[in-house]
Amino acid sequence: MSTARLETFADGVFAIAATLLILNVDSQVKEGSSAIGHQLVEIWPSYIGYAVSFVTIGIIWSNHHTVMGQLGRVNRTFLMLNIFLLMCVAFLPFPTRLVAENLRDRHELQPAALAYGATMTVMAVCYLSLWLYATRDGRLLRDDSDPRTVTGITRSYLPGAPIYLTATLLALVSPLASVALFGAIALFYVVESSFFGSEAIE
Amino acid sequence: MSTARLETFADGVFAIAATLLILNVDSQVKEGSSAIGHQLVEIWPSYIGYAVSFVTIGIIWSNHHTVMGQLGRVNRTFLMLNIFLLMCVAFLPFPTRLVAENLRDRHELQPAALAYGATMTVMAVCYLSLWLYATRDGRLLRDDSDPRTVTGITRSYLPGAPIYLTATLLALVSPLASVALFGAIALFYVVESSFFGSEAIE
Amino acid sequence: MSTARLETFADGVFAIAATLLILNVDSQVKEGSSAIGHQLVEIWPSYIGYAVSFVTIGIIWSNHHTVMGQLGRVNRTFLMLNIFLLMCVAFLPFPTRLVAENLRDRHELQPAALAYGATMTVMAVCYLSLWLYATRDGRLLRDDSDPRTVTGITRSYLPGAPIYLTATLLALVSPLASVALFGAIALFYVVESSFFGSEAIE
Amino acid sequence: MSTARLETFADGVFAIAATLLILNVDSQVKEGSSAIGHQLVEIWPSYIGYAVSFVTIGIIWSNHHTVMGQLGRVNRTFLMLNIFLLMCVAFLPFPTRLVAENLRDRHELQPAALAYGATMTVMAVCYLSLWLYATRDGRLLRDDSDPRTVTGITRSYLPGAPIYLTATLLALVSPLASVALFGAIALFYVVESSFFGSEAIE
Repeated sequence: MSTARLETFADGVFAIAATLLILNVDSQVKEGSSAIGHQLVEIWPSYIGYAVSFVTIGIIWSNHHTVMGQLGRVNRTFLMLNIFLLMCVAFLPFPTRLVAENLRDRHELQPAALAYGATMTVMAVCYLSLWLYATRDGRLLRDDSDPRTVTGITRSYLPGAPIYLTATLLALVSPLASVALFGAIALFYVVESSFFGSEAIE
Repeated sequence: MSTARLETFADGVFAIAATLLILNVDSQVKEGSSAIGHQLVEIWPSYIGYAVSFVTIGIIWSNHHTVMGQLGRVNRTFLMLNIFLLMCVAFLPFPTRLVAENLRDRHELQPAALAYGATMTVMAVCYLSLWLYATRDGRLLRDDSDPRTVTGITRSYLPGAPIYLTATLLALVSPLASVALFGAIALFYVVESSFFGSEAIE
Repeated sequence: MSTARLETFADGVFAIAATLLILNVDSQVKEGSSAIGHQLVEIWPSYIGYAVSFVTIGIIWSNHHTVMGQLGRVNRTFLMLNIFLLMCVAFLPFPTRLVAENLRDRHELQPAALAYGATMTVMAVCYLSLWLYATRDGRLLRDDSDPRTVTGITRSYLPGAPIYLTATLLALVSPLASVALFGAIALFYVVESSFFGSEAIE
Repeated sequence: MSTARLETFADGVFAIAATLLILNVDSQVKEGSSAIGHQLVEIWPSYIGYAVSFVTIGIIWSNHHTVMGQLGRVNRTFLMLNIFLLMCVAFLPFPTRLVAENLRDRHELQPAALAYGATMTVMAVCYLSLWLYATRDGRLLRDDSDPRTVTGITRSYLPGAPIYLTATLLALVSPLASVALFGAIALFYVVESSFFGSEAIE
């Protein structure tokens, strides 16, 4: 199987998971329950949840291609790790909805933030495992892969899991701070890309 | 990352957002609430909403390819701008449903039309930003891109945001006129393509 | 735009529309309303509706590729006709659900069958328009397209719209006969492919 | 039609069916019915159902590519068999939900397990038919396909249907044992891939 083949399936899951996020917003507005204008203002947490998770999925998608671009072949173990990663990606709309629906209820926000954070932490672990498995002893690397790029990717992926774990555990003390941190991480990536992202991507 | 890779993901989001529009129509017919035939006639605004938004997404998709066809490379900033654009595209089914469900209620139509118009205006701004960013000083253009085509695209994208902003603000005076204008814009593109679209597209 | 690009978007809409059909079956079984086993037997029309529409979409998808395989270029008018066709494809899950839910209610079946038939008739008209537009004076044909294949496709697409229109109008007299005819048409294509489909497809 | 074309459509159905599985989990948590944290713990069968069916679809997808990799051409009969296979794949989210929702209700679990098992058995039969049809007398095989690989695939696909049929019939005696067996089969594939999957896939 070529790496391109694997990307088609992955791209499909990324695109669908991102697009399904709108259902979370949509289900918040009920016909005839109260004035639409009022409801549209009331559900502002859903917009933020939509934006944060959409951008997060977009970033994971773009990182996925950076990873695939360094690989020259895949094997069945890699395929399985990739399926685990996609399982986390497709799961994300669910905790996103929980956080958005309960942002103003301090009591209910805690389990929601824990669910969101757990999903992101497991996803970061899957990501790192995928990458470390593929690069260990150059196992699946392209013959002409650039060692500096490979090391750079490893270095930038290592902090992912600890950061998300920290943000998740923070929910035990302050769910709101935890959720704010999830948003800040996404914002950081957007800003970083916008200011330092002018190099062409191969 | 090749431009082709980016298009696969984008095509996925476009296709899913367009196909999800049918859920707006579907949810309007409730089993056992009244005679199906009657309901099918009653929900005519949902059909129009479906058609207008489907065509709109189709046109944005085809424009997206016109844009990508001029580019030879992408960078992370472009990727991020593209994610913002797709975020608007995937958002569209939601305000489409609001407008369709409230077309006969002048009071409720106003916030719905504002939501639809705001989505389209932000999308037009994202589109123009994406294009201007990519073409400024030929940043991401193909080496053999045709200056006349590039200028032509810029000229045809510039009016998008002001037109949609005008149609949106019109909702403050007359929601129905605003919605009619949204439909007219889509119809204009269909007619324009049908009569003047016989040149082969590269 | 290459014909391949157009096919990616179309394939997405075909795949999503087909996969969404399961939601029609799924929504028929309500937790806690009565014994699951009983419900699973009761909703048999939903299984048939699922199968007929899935196969129908599959056949349209495969025909779509037969068409695209003869074309060497596309233009904006063709793009627009293609969007209209996809709009019908994405619409199909809705009347499928109506027919399946009302198969045992002669009164309600009539509008449902009319809606299904109207969708299929319009789709057949879109299909034929797309094909006739592309082939008229060889407008978008590949330089090396085979005249005999082109004539063969035209001949096999011409009866589509009249057949579906007949089946639709039949619903005015007998909705059940109309629905049976829709199923028979799909079955015909399956059987025809199974027995006479052993030639390799280019 | 090239085999690549067929894979694009199939990949779409696989990706969407897998991603739609999250809707089964999502619908289990109802806003305002009881504490979120409690609900999140209560619905653990939905997580397992999600994981098992996601991995199952992932494995079928990867096998589908192994099959396609051996073929050099397709014909309409093959296309139709492929559509039947995809029909089963897209159907899977429905019985997955039934099993997950009724895992703690011995009475209701039986029909749910039978529905899940029937879907998997039919899928395995479709899979085997597809493969046997394509390889009988080398009908659709690539000219340079490796006889040993082809025989290996045949041997590994043959037990699928009987195993799933056995697990299905087991539900008549013990639904729980049947469901455990479905999970064990998926787990077996994961473990097998993880330990013996280090050869590069072509």
